[in-house]
Amino acid sequence: MPLIVQKYGGTSVGNPERILNVARRVIETQQAGHSVVAVVSAMSGVTDSLIKLARQVADKPTDREMDVLLATGEQTTIALLAMAIHSLGSKAISLTGAQAGILTDGIHTKAKIANISPRQIRKYLNEGYICIVAGFQGQTLQGHITTLGRGGSDLTAIAIAAALKAKMCEIYTDVDGVYTCDPRVVPEARKLETIDYDELLEMASSGSKVMQSRSVEFAKKFQVPFEVRSSFNTNRGTIVKEEPLGLENVVVRGISIERNQAKVTITNVPDKPGTASRIFTTLAEANVIIDVIVQNVSMSGTTDISFTMNGDELEKIGGMLDAVAREIGAGEVKRQKGVAKLSVVGIGMRSHSGVAAKLFECLGHGGVNIQMISTSEIKIAVILDEVKIESAARLAHEAFGLSADA
Amino acid sequence: MPLIVQKYGGTSVGNPERILNVARRVIETQQAGHSVVAVVSAMSGVTDSLIKLARQVADKPTDREMDVLLATGEQTTIALLAMAIHSLGSKAISLTGAQAGILTDGIHTKAKIANISPRQIRKYLNEGYICIVAGFQGQTLQGHITTLGRGGSDLTAIAIAAALKAKMCEIYTDVDGVYTCDPRVVPEARKLETIDYDELLEMASSGSKVMQSRSVEFAKKFQVPFEVRSSFNTNRGTIVKEEPLGLENVVVRGISIERNQAKVTITNVPDKPGTASRIFTTLAEANVIIDVIVQNVSMSGTTDISFTMNGDELEKIGGMLDAVAREIGAGEVKRQKGVAKLSVVGIGMRSHSGVAAKLFECLGHGGVNIQMISTSEIKIAVILDEVKIESAARLAHEAFGLSADA
Repeated sequence: MPLIVQKYGGTSVGNPERILNVARRVIETQQAGHSVVAVVSAMSGVTDSLIKLARQVADKPTDREMDVLLATGEQTTIALLAMAIHSLGSKAISLTGAQAGILTDGIHTKAKIANISPRQIRKYLNEGYICIVAGFQGQTLQGHITTLGRGGSDLTAIAIAAALKAKMCEIYTDVDGVYTCDPRVVPEARKLETIDYDELLEMASSGSKVMQSRSVEFAKKFQVPFEVRSSFNTNRGTIVKEEPLGLENVVVRGISIERNQAKVTITNVPDKPGTASRIFTTLAEANVIIDVIVQNVSMSGTTDISFTMNGDELEKIGGMLDAVAREIGAGEVKRQKGVAKLSVVGIGMRSHSGVAAKLFECLGHGGVNIQMISTSEIKIAVILDEVKIESAARLAHEAFGLSADA
Repeated sequence: MPLIVQKYGGTSVGNPERILNVARRVIETQQAGHSVVAVVSAMSGVTDSLIKLARQVADKPTDREMDVLLATGEQTTIALLAMAIHSLGSKAISLTGAQAGILTDGIHTKAKIANISPRQIRKYLNEGYICIVAGFQGQTLQGHITTLGRGGSDLTAIAIAAALKAKMCEIYTDVDGVYTCDPRVVPEARKLETIDYDELLEMASSGSKVMQSRSVEFAKKFQVPFEVRSSFNTNRGTIVKEEPLGLENVVVRGISIERNQAKVTITNVPDKPGTASRIFTTLAEANVIIDVIVQNVSMSGTTDISFTMNGDELEKIGGMLDAVAREIGAGEVKRQKGVAKLSVVGIGMRSHSGVAAKLFECLGHGGVNIQMISTSEIKIAVILDEVKIESAARLAHEAFGLSADA
């Protein structure tokens, strides 16, 4: 029987009633003629409660014990879901990460999957069981419990799908799929039937937080197709897979926006080796996460360097850059909050020079000033005044013909 | 370094503050020059919450999944306690039942320990770690998670103490030790310094619920001495070990009482093979737990059979015994609630015929009527009117010279 791996996040299994709903959905999938592995997260809120408990007994809980603690969250869910399926008359068995053969390295709280030995899962599937696997966790060769860090349950599902060569991996979340733009901003936004791994990565890193990048990268590496869909309805979601290049009509797949950005510009940076490195090493050491970096060609021996970050990160910088600017003989450090990023995403856009022109034209016509521009193989990102971001998104969505009736 | 195994129950680790207290106590024990293994239960209330959750997804949760679910309770505690010890500056490592090498049979929810492979524990002790082991749980040879049923954490502690030949096993509870009688009933009751395994068993089965019988039996079988003491103070508790027979002054060790008993008498039971069996098979099939059974010698071909049980069990019987009585040609079935049991416990009392006489005499003098009598090797139990049980306990305690200043 073809295998389907399903992953249910914390909201989907957030209470007993929802667990029973998931149980019904899993059973339906099996009854439709599939083998089923369901990967589940901790019930929403549970992980936070456990972290809070830990902080009450230790200022800095050890990573190893944090993993032992947090792993109980998913273990609770697998047991409850297996019980629920059993109570509805089907055969199910729960497996912790260790029991499911998820082998990881020993980097506690953010372990990487080293290998999967799906012997147990395969055995139970062959015996007609629905396998319920704890996401987010594994064990080392030495038998220590590990967790995979943020987005770990998605990773578990995709890794199991890869190891067992599943027909499909379904990622159930609280969103319906991937849209051409956020429907709360652009009411005409359309759900995409398919999207390429790289496009989803760019959408994700640009604010459409459907999935963590590492899970998408893992799926891409092992060519695991997966579907992002909602556990609260039965609508088809969006299938993420490798898309053939060169189809004229899918040059632009979607628009993604990210609010609450901040922009920093250092003026008159001397154009000599090592100055940019000095700036960004300082930021890295302060754990400031930088997004877009723009440096234009040097005029008269100096240049301006600009970069953006999440608005909340700006506080971390404090006066550190002023010192660096003085040290390297640069001008002033300008900080600006209240900007936002708009990204136009689509594979193959690089070979279509018209895309950038069309974006700039529609924004210009709409009176939206572009403060920074950054491009990649499959993305054009512009930094705008935050108050203009919604109208900019609607303008671009319209210009690229992304609406449902386009 | 000599090894001490400590066991902390759910109340002792009931909140973060108490976990930190336990951490301090464990560290003190290590600093006093011992290797330490601490076995812990789930935080009080946690197991009940998990059971409640299970009932919300399934009317009859499967035993296997119940074990997966309940095992998270102790896993949470071991992680928190290890963190707490670490935060106080000492080395600790948590081990689930499986990691600690607790191998059990496959009878889920009431598994029996089949074997202990203390290789991991020994390794970490040699490296100077305090080992924190999850009580109540283990795994089968096939890698399924199991739980040991009621009193399982005590059993884990005593089994580890046996496997590692510990110098002492300390069972921390919310009582101070084992007393000659319940101090709430007999203010003069005295804490015992030592008690024999068999005496504790009789005290336990007679209402002094310090520990489950199976843990005491296990300790007796493997000759593991253990101390029952409180985690809320530093008083010495009561040491349970094999006591040499024949010391005149310890014939009677204590008095234990059990309230809320019920008595059933079936009159005129024909004295022929199979009648008693017919009665008690019926009761066993209805899961009624019987305590004392008394049948006197047959007079004129018929006899009366009486037995006692917990008062709450009486409801279960309903009319089933009337049918049985008719079938075997017996007389009527008399039910009586509101009785209680008083037991006088002590090894060697069998060879001291004066014990029974002294008990009956002191009760008679005090105007307490004895309804049933049952004796064993180390116990004399009498069934009394429940309203008389406290005065009876005081009379017996006095008569056997058990008071502190006796």
